[in-house]
This record gives sequence, C-alpha cells and structure tokens, in this order.
Amino acid sequence: MPSALETLKSRLADVNALHAALTMMDWDQQTYMPKGGATARAEHIGILSRMAHETFVADETRTALDASSPEAEDDEAMLRVVRRDLDLATKLPTSLVEEKSRLSAIAHERWVEARAKSDFASFAPTLERMFEIAREEAQFLGYKESIYDALLDQYEQGATAADARAMFDAIKGPQVALVKSIAAQPVIDDSLLYGDWSKTLQGEFTEMLVQAIGFDFARGRQDTAPHPFCTGWSVGDIRLTTRYKPYIGSAIFGSLHEAGHGMYEQGSPMSWDRSPLAGGVSLGVHESQSRTWENIVGRSKPFWSHFLPALQAKFPALASYDLNTFYRAINRVEPSYIRVEADELTYNLHVLVRFEIELDVLTDKLKVKDLPEAWNAKYAEYLGITPRNDAEGCLQDVHWSMGSIGYFPTYSMGNLLSYQIWNALKKDVPNTDELMASGNFAPILGWLRDNVYAQGKRYAPKELIQRVTGKPMGAEDYLAGLNAKYSEIYNL
Amino acid sequence: MPSALETLKSRLADVNALHAALTMMDWDQQTYMPKGGATARAEHIGILSRMAHETFVADETRTALDASSPEAEDDEAMLRVVRRDLDLATKLPTSLVEEKSRLSAIAHERWVEARAKSDFASFAPTLERMFEIAREEAQFLGYKESIYDALLDQYEQGATAADARAMFDAIKGPQVALVKSIAAQPVIDDSLLYGDWSKTLQGEFTEMLVQAIGFDFARGRQDTAPHPFCTGWSVGDIRLTTRYKPYIGSAIFGSLHEAGHGMYEQGSPMSWDRSPLAGGVSLGVHESQSRTWENIVGRSKPFWSHFLPALQAKFPALASYDLNTFYRAINRVEPSYIRVEADELTYNLHVLVRFEIELDVLTDKLKVKDLPEAWNAKYAEYLGITPRNDAEGCLQDVHWSMGSIGYFPTYSMGNLLSYQIWNALKKDVPNTDELMASGNFAPILGWLRDNVYAQGKRYAPKELIQRVTGKPMGAEDYLAGLNAKYSEIYNL
Repeated sequence: MPSALETLKSRLADVNALHAALTMMDWDQQTYMPKGGATARAEHIGILSRMAHETFVADETRTALDASSPEAEDDEAMLRVVRRDLDLATKLPTSLVEEKSRLSAIAHERWVEARAKSDFASFAPTLERMFEIAREEAQFLGYKESIYDALLDQYEQGATAADARAMFDAIKGPQVALVKSIAAQPVIDDSLLYGDWSKTLQGEFTEMLVQAIGFDFARGRQDTAPHPFCTGWSVGDIRLTTRYKPYIGSAIFGSLHEAGHGMYEQGSPMSWDRSPLAGGVSLGVHESQSRTWENIVGRSKPFWSHFLPALQAKFPALASYDLNTFYRAINRVEPSYIRVEADELTYNLHVLVRFEIELDVLTDKLKVKDLPEAWNAKYAEYLGITPRNDAEGCLQDVHWSMGSIGYFPTYSMGNLLSYQIWNALKKDVPNTDELMASGNFAPILGWLRDNVYAQGKRYAPKELIQRVTGKPMGAEDYLAGLNAKYSEIYNL
Repeated sequence: MPSALETLKSRLADVNALHAALTMMDWDQQTYMPKGGATARAEHIGILSRMAHETFVADETRTALDASSPEAEDDEAMLRVVRRDLDLATKLPTSLVEEKSRLSAIAHERWVEARAKSDFASFAPTLERMFEIAREEAQFLGYKESIYDALLDQYEQGATAADARAMFDAIKGPQVALVKSIAAQPVIDDSLLYGDWSKTLQGEFTEMLVQAIGFDFARGRQDTAPHPFCTGWSVGDIRLTTRYKPYIGSAIFGSLHEAGHGMYEQGSPMSWDRSPLAGGVSLGVHESQSRTWENIVGRSKPFWSHFLPALQAKFPALASYDLNTFYRAINRVEPSYIRVEADELTYNLHVLVRFEIELDVLTDKLKVKDLPEAWNAKYAEYLGITPRNDAEGCLQDVHWSMGSIGYFPTYSMGNLLSYQIWNALKKDVPNTDELMASGNFAPILGWLRDNVYAQGKRYAPKELIQRVTGKPMGAEDYLAGLNAKYSEIYNL
C-alpha cells in the first residue's frame, strides 16, 4: 500500500511527463517544425495541456497532498511548492487552460507571419483574444489591488504591480540621467561588430564560449530560433537557442544569456530530476542569472581579455581591434528599437514600455488595435526614438503570442538582482576579474551553483534573495554597478 | 449531446495527442537528445505510453465504438481500423505496454553504446528482456500456429510465419542462383563512390533530390540519425532522417528510401490529419514505397541521366565518370555485412537471417547470449561472408532495441510489392523512363498517391494490394524485375 506521499509523487510524475511533452512540442515549434505542422501542433498542445491540468487539479491530487507528510529531507519544501502550484491551478478552469494553450500555438505562427510582414493589424485579433484570456485568468486567480497582480504573481511569487511601479520609479530617474550624460560624450563606434559573419562559425564560437563558462553539453545542446530562449524537460536535458545576425553580438550575448538560464537549470541536483523542486525559483531570479552571464561576465573587460584572441582567430575581420576598442564597442550605449539587443542601460526602459502597455490594455485604458501608436509614443518619450515599423516596434517580442502577459517586469527585477547577487558573490570570491581573465569560471559558477542554482525551489524567491544577499531586492547595487562601469567607459 | 461517434473521435484525439508526444520524443532521442536526457526520456515515454494505452483501452472507448454508426463517407473504414487496433490493444496489459516503452528508450541508448564498442555481451541482458516481453506480448495477443504469427500480424495484418517462410522459399533459390551467376562475372568497381564527402554538401544534395521527386518540405524536414528512419505526427509534419558516410550511397539512397516512406505519409488527405485512417496501411506496403523510390526509381539509369550532372557539380571528384559507370557502381552486387547498405539482390538474405534468428529465439531454440555465433554462421551460409565483429554483425540494426520483433519479414514483402505495384503503375504510366530522365516525377508520384498513398488505411493491406495490382502479393514481378535489370548490368 503506497503512502499518500508516494501516491502524490506518482501523480506528479504523470503531470511532469505531460509537461515534458508540451515543453518539447514548444521547443520543436520554435526550432525545427515545418510550417505544415502548425495546425496539428496546436491541437496536440491544447489536448495535452488539458490533460496535464486535469490530472494535476483532480481531487486525487488534493487528497494525496492533504494526507502527505514529509518522509525525506526535501519533502517539506516539495509539498510547499506543490501546494502553491495546486492552489493556483485549481482556480483556473480546464477549458481556459486548454484554449490558452491551443491559441498560443496558433498565435506563435501568426506572430511570426505578422512580424515578417511587419503587419500588426493581422495579429491584433489574436492578441486581443490573448489579452481577454489574461483578464479571465486574473479574475479566476483573484487579486487585491490591481488585475496585474494576479498575473505577475504567477511568474514572481508575491510581486505586485505596485512593486513593479516602485522599482521603475527607483531606477528610471538615475538611468535616464546616466543615459543623458553619456549622450553628451562622443559616440562609440561599434561598426566593427557588423558584418556578413558565417553562421557555422558563429555556431562554433558560441558553443565553445558557453561550454567554457560551464554549460554542460552532455546534458544539453544549442540550436537556433527566431527568438532565442532556453527550455528543458530534465536536469539532464536543457536546450539553449541562439540566432545569427549581421550584428555578431546577437549570437554571442544571446548564447551567453541563454546559457545563464541553462546553467541555472543544470545546477539542480540530479536527484531532483522531474521533481517540482528542480529548476529556477522565479522568473526574476532566473533572469538575474542570464543577465549575470550575459552582462556582468560576458560584457566585462577581463572576460574579453581571455576570449578576444579566440574570436579574432575565428573571425579575422576583427583581428585588428584591440581589447579596449572591442570592449567599448560591445558596451556602446544608444537608445535602440529591439529590447533583446538593447544595451544594459536602456534595457529597463524597453521593459517599462511593455509594463505600462500591458497595464493599460488589461484595465481597458488602451485598445489592442491602438497598441502600435501607444508603443511608438512611449518609445519616443522614454528612449527618444520612434520605431519605423511594427516589426521593430510592438511585434518584436514573442511573449504576448505565448500568452505571457504580466511577465515583463521580471526582466527588470533580474537586472537589479544580477548586480545584487554578484556583489554577494564577490565577498566570497574576491578575485573575479582575475578568474575571468584566466578563463577560470569554475569558482564563479561553483558559488552560484551552491548558493542559487542547487537550491532550486527550496525557498520562496524573497527568502532565497534574503539568504543569498542578506537583504531584500533593491536598486542600489544595480545603479552603483552601472554608474561605475559606464563612468569608466564614457569618462564621465 | 455528442453522438457516440463524436465521443469516440474525441477519445481518439486524446490518444492521438499522446502518440504524437511519444513519436516526437522518439524522434528527438534519435536525432538531437544529449546523452544526459536518456533517463528522464525513458521515464516520460513509459508514463505517456501507459496513459495512451489506458485512454485507448478504457471501457468508454469500447462503449463509444460499439454505439457508433457512420455519419460521413470515411467513417465506416475508420471504425473498422479502430476496432482492429482496439481489439489488439485490449489484449495487452497496460503494465506490459509501459515496461516495453520504458525499456525501449533505455535499450536504445544501450544499443548505441554497445554498437560503438562492438560489444554484444553488454547489450545481451537488455535484449533478453526485450525478447521475453515479445513472448509475453504474443501470449496475450494469441496465435494459432506459430508464436511469430502474433507478432508479425501487428505489423502486417493477416501475415503469418508460414507466409514469410513461403515467401523466402520462393525467392531464395532464384536469388542465390542470380547472385552466383553474377559472381562469375567481372567485379564492378564502385570505389568512385567512396571519399571524404562534405556533410554539408551531402545534406544539400539529398534535400534537393527528395524535393525534386516530390517530398514536400513545407510539410516535413530532413535531419540526421545514426540509423535513418522516417516518422511524423501529422500529415503536415513528416520527418526524414539520413546519414553521411564515406560511401556517398548511404546518404543518397538513405534519403530516397526515407522520402519514399515520407511521401506515402504526406499523401494522406489533409482532412484525415490525426485520424486513424491516415498513414501507411501496413509495414510491407510502406516498405514497398521506400524501396520503389530508393531502388526502382533511385537506382535506375534514367534517374541518374537526369541527376548525375547535378551530383557532379556538387562533388567534382565524380565529374570524370560517365552515366554507365556510375549506374553500374550504384548497382554493384556483392554480399556485404550491413543490411541497409546491401544491394537489391542480397538484401532479402539479410532479412532471412533475422527472421530465422527471431523465430529460434522466440521458440527457445537459440539463447540470446549465443546470438552472435548464430548470426555469423547464417551470414557465412547465406551470404558467404563472416562479420568481423558484432557492430557489423548482430548489433547493426536498431529494431530489436525498440522491441520491434517479428517485423523484419515486412522488409522482404516490401521488396516484392515494390515491383508488383510498379508494374501496375506502368500500365497507366507507360513512359516512366522518359519521365524520370526529364526529372518529371509528378505523373509517377500522382499515380502512387491516387492509388496507394491517398487510400491510407481505407482498405486492409491484402485488399489494397488486390485492388492496386489485380492479384495477391507474389514473387514473380520482383524476380522478373531483378533478372531483367541485373542481366543487363552484368551481361548475363
């Protein structure tokens, strides 16, 4: 006779297998699926999402959960995670879950087409339905102050629209001021980063790079996708994606970013494989690690003092540039259209635009059909530039097509947390510059693994941040880090 | 209130979604999965196989099926197909289905490793369990004469071990005689086909080739795998695989072979997508189409009179050879170790070895541990050669690791049927040589699509063969075809 806990774990294994299938179908859709597969994919994803939801929220799960008591070390944390997930999931009707999944799969194809034609109008009806679904979700999930809270909490436990607003208020002023003083300085020439770079060589170089920092190719791989992402269905099978563009930074920083996510996922104990405890604790903490490896490590001078020769050997067109020129080029600050290729400084302004637009659409202050105008007006206001078309404007991100609404603020949280966690790391690993310059990333990865990655979902996000950094999330480390870095680069 | 038929179709859609997930997980395991993903993959596949089986054999399916009556044109055929599938599936206990699936996923990794090390002993315990499972399956499925009948019937409805034996008896004598008279002729030099061929160019050339004959890349793609196969989870999403070797025929004929399977799958009406009626009617008929495009079309002189210039442009090392030399090289007959690379003439002798060994192991006349010796003895007897190691001997095929036992005879049935169907085609499309020589494959594909591919599973295999060729499966077209072809090539 199995214990209640064993019964629960067996049910969770079924849910996990269905989620693995769904995740793989999504990965395949974004990497390899031919166009003709889209219709069946949407049906398959819809059905399996319904099954996963039904299996999870079934009375048997609740009964087993309520009767379960911890039997081994990590069971208590596991039960806490499952209880929160089940409480959230139980509030959502299966029909809504199924419709959202099916629509996401279709919406992805429509978004790809609309972006290719830079035609927002053709995507608007789909997006409108997606926002309606988000509104319905929020009503089912419930909230105290803002409809946005219900959605954001799914991605970042306990975070609210007011938190997000406070965060943006704290950073907006200093960041805009910093951008202004940089604008008064001579423009950095980064034209060296543009060229007709071989895709094969970009693939080889970025694979070497992410392997060197610690991504394990025995337990993962890298493919390409229109919008890079990281996913996986086992601690032993984590998939990165990147993309190859005329701007070589797309591949390099895309790969480093996704490898940050990937190393976080690979850092869960193998014994947690397929357990609810494995993986990142929240999207904000997850993003802090992708931004750490992309920006704090990957856009640092010590990092490139080690890797520039290898890059130049691969791409002889770069051979004549010295370290400082290259370093300045990859850190050039300039308001631009595309969030994922934005510099560190203006990045959060891109996020702010999305946050405000989501909030306005959800609260009926903005109609979906008027979204491009609102988008462009905000870009003009915050970044001083106006997108020339929808493809480089409001059609650039994959997220809304996936129904990920209320998700963007976690990107900015990740930026803040990346510096906050890095400063904690530097207390224990004081010689980070030296380590990076010698290509020895093991002590850095080791500290992050011990303190963050291997903790999985053992602690709630806010508790983990407190434990790791000794304080709640704040803007000071982030602002100080940016100030120090850019004052030096721009001689401020 | 949905009708019984609608209820049935809805349940079948659920089963179809689970099978799509399983098929994709298998495709990924054979193409892209990192080693570290194997353990979780086996668990996921085991669980989803159990779910698919349980959902299908549930009382609700039977009840809905029994109460269903046809509402549209194809419903009657669909109900017949579902009834047979359900009758078979209901006989198998879910625990056995789950164990077989889980073991298959693990066995695949063990087989890859064992083959790499050419170490049968390390694979033997896994294979032993797989044969035990096959024995158990056969007992549950039931049979009249031979335990083999129960297994073979799953792949080729109505076929028995006695049928297979009769087929081999009919072809073995004439084929061995033909091979002998060829052995008395001067050996054809095919060394031109060996080289350090670029994988990228092999990929480009074979994609061009399969597209030219009619494989639709908007509804499919080609990747690489250690053992080429074709799979899919929608009429709109069919996946080929091939492999790149120093023998350029591996990629070319591997791709043409899998494209034959693929075009058969793509030929189902799109309205049948995700219906039990879509896809190939049996493995024998399926194989007839892969062999048609690989051998009858792809190893013909008219075919290469059209494509040789393109091949030579891609691979200048081949530029100095004329059509006849190339044609003779790709049709060289020589007993060899590897089935999938065997010439048309000796191919069935490879299959015969496997058929006899399966039969002996299933009936306890042969122990799994003694399999390499038995294998090598049969190769010595039928083909006059002795494999130098297990990798080129009994470890060469993927099938047993997948639990596909009782499957090999369908390969020989496919060989026979390929010529039999081709002769029927030639009555309606008399100028096939001319068409191939001008690169116009549409009339050939069109005939096969109308008569075979678009029929899906509408008729039972034997009925389809009778309808298409006017007679039951026999050896005469096949033997006559081989005799004509090789008499000319070898001046017999």
